[in-house]
Amino acid sequence: MSSSTDSISGLTVDIRAFAQERDWEQFHDPKSLLLALVGEVGELAELFQWVPAGDAVAAFSSAERQQRAGEEISDVLIYLLRLADVLGVDVGAAASAKLADSRERFVAHDVRGTAPEKR
Amino acid sequence: MSSSTDSISGLTVDIRAFAQERDWEQFHDPKSLLLALVGEVGELAELFQWVPAGDAVAAFSSAERQQRAGEEISDVLIYLLRLADVLGVDVGAAASAKLADSRERFVAHDVRGTAPEKR
Amino acid sequence: MSSSTDSISGLTVDIRAFAQERDWEQFHDPKSLLLALVGEVGELAELFQWVPAGDAVAAFSSAERQQRAGEEISDVLIYLLRLADVLGVDVGAAASAKLADSRERFVAHDVRGTAPEKR
Amino acid sequence: MSSSTDSISGLTVDIRAFAQERDWEQFHDPKSLLLALVGEVGELAELFQWVPAGDAVAAFSSAERQQRAGEEISDVLIYLLRLADVLGVDVGAAASAKLADSRERFVAHDVRGTAPEKR
Repeated sequence: MSSSTDSISGLTVDIRAFAQERDWEQFHDPKSLLLALVGEVGELAELFQWVPAGDAVAAFSSAERQQRAGEEISDVLIYLLRLADVLGVDVGAAASAKLADSRERFVAHDVRGTAPEKR
Repeated sequence: MSSSTDSISGLTVDIRAFAQERDWEQFHDPKSLLLALVGEVGELAELFQWVPAGDAVAAFSSAERQQRAGEEISDVLIYLLRLADVLGVDVGAAASAKLADSRERFVAHDVRGTAPEKR
Repeated sequence: MSSSTDSISGLTVDIRAFAQERDWEQFHDPKSLLLALVGEVGELAELFQWVPAGDAVAAFSSAERQQRAGEEISDVLIYLLRLADVLGVDVGAAASAKLADSRERFVAHDVRGTAPEKR
Repeated sequence: MSSSTDSISGLTVDIRAFAQERDWEQFHDPKSLLLALVGEVGELAELFQWVPAGDAVAAFSSAERQQRAGEEISDVLIYLLRLADVLGVDVGAAASAKLADSRERFVAHDVRGTAPEKR
């Protein structure tokens, strides 16, 4: 087990060990992991679906609701890191690079207060 | 910017700063972030949809394809960490707790080689 | 081609013919179709992600935006009907049965005005 | 209730009546319906996630498993038609138009046996 709960690579190693100890690596091809991820995203979506958009943060501010959200977010993260691991992707480095790239594509003073549009 | 690309909390802080610098926090209510996450999961799914399941790891082993997968995985991670941040969830701690819970629910010698079934 | 655009089975037959004419049935195993469906759900989500929840209907009331939404909804529908076809599911009958079942589970005068909760 | 289970517009009207009878229209803004759709896509994905891709059709050929798949497909369809209804989209016409458009974009003898690539 990793020494820190804040390390992406440490969490990745823990998840890999969890799969290995159960001989579940055989099920962890990318398409299966993606569908498992979609299942967890669905559970996360269900938590929020009928909450009015403006009330969502407040509605999840109690310790019990925050924990529920944290569990579902964790399930998504676990499959996402497992997928990255299976593909040999260093997701911490990749996410930092993506963020740096976004800083260049969306220059702060050009886009201030305007959501990027998808058409 | 955080000093390490491997830190969940560091990455979370970087993502928050990215949103703040663009005055995009106003768009980042949980339901909107969830839909943005779903959009990125969709792009990740599109990469793999027609690849035969057994070939998927090999098909993404080239540097170029691995980088593409890493970009899409990063986009999912970025919105997931942003959502956790908005909800005040410590996702590193939550994921470690979830994994510990799964170790108890799925005792290794009981479930070895058998995928947990959903009905 | 079917004579009516309003027939679920007619649309299903048209989609099947489209796949057959291109020899694409080989790619249409359930897991691949599901990932393709997820890709289209992602594109639909991207259309709405940054629109304030209360403005979404009005924001899509122009002919051009309504058509864009219609295209993405159609893409989801097409993969959903293709998946049902591959599995031999009569989705019209199944959806009617599901709706009848929901009428019994959620008796109108018991649940009026209260969203069903997911925990 | 509609006279036919095969009619997209008939099913749409039935779903609308179901929502109206429960005073649930207030919850059915597009973003909420999309998250509910995502929840149902997640449940559908969970059914297939650990089934080997090549075995998926056979694994769902029993009456019981086919019915389970049909239920989850129906749930996705119901939210999709509800979303189209709220947006004023004639989804039968839109899907037929999309299919006609795809016939032109992917000319059968050009693309025979080759899956369209996403990059």
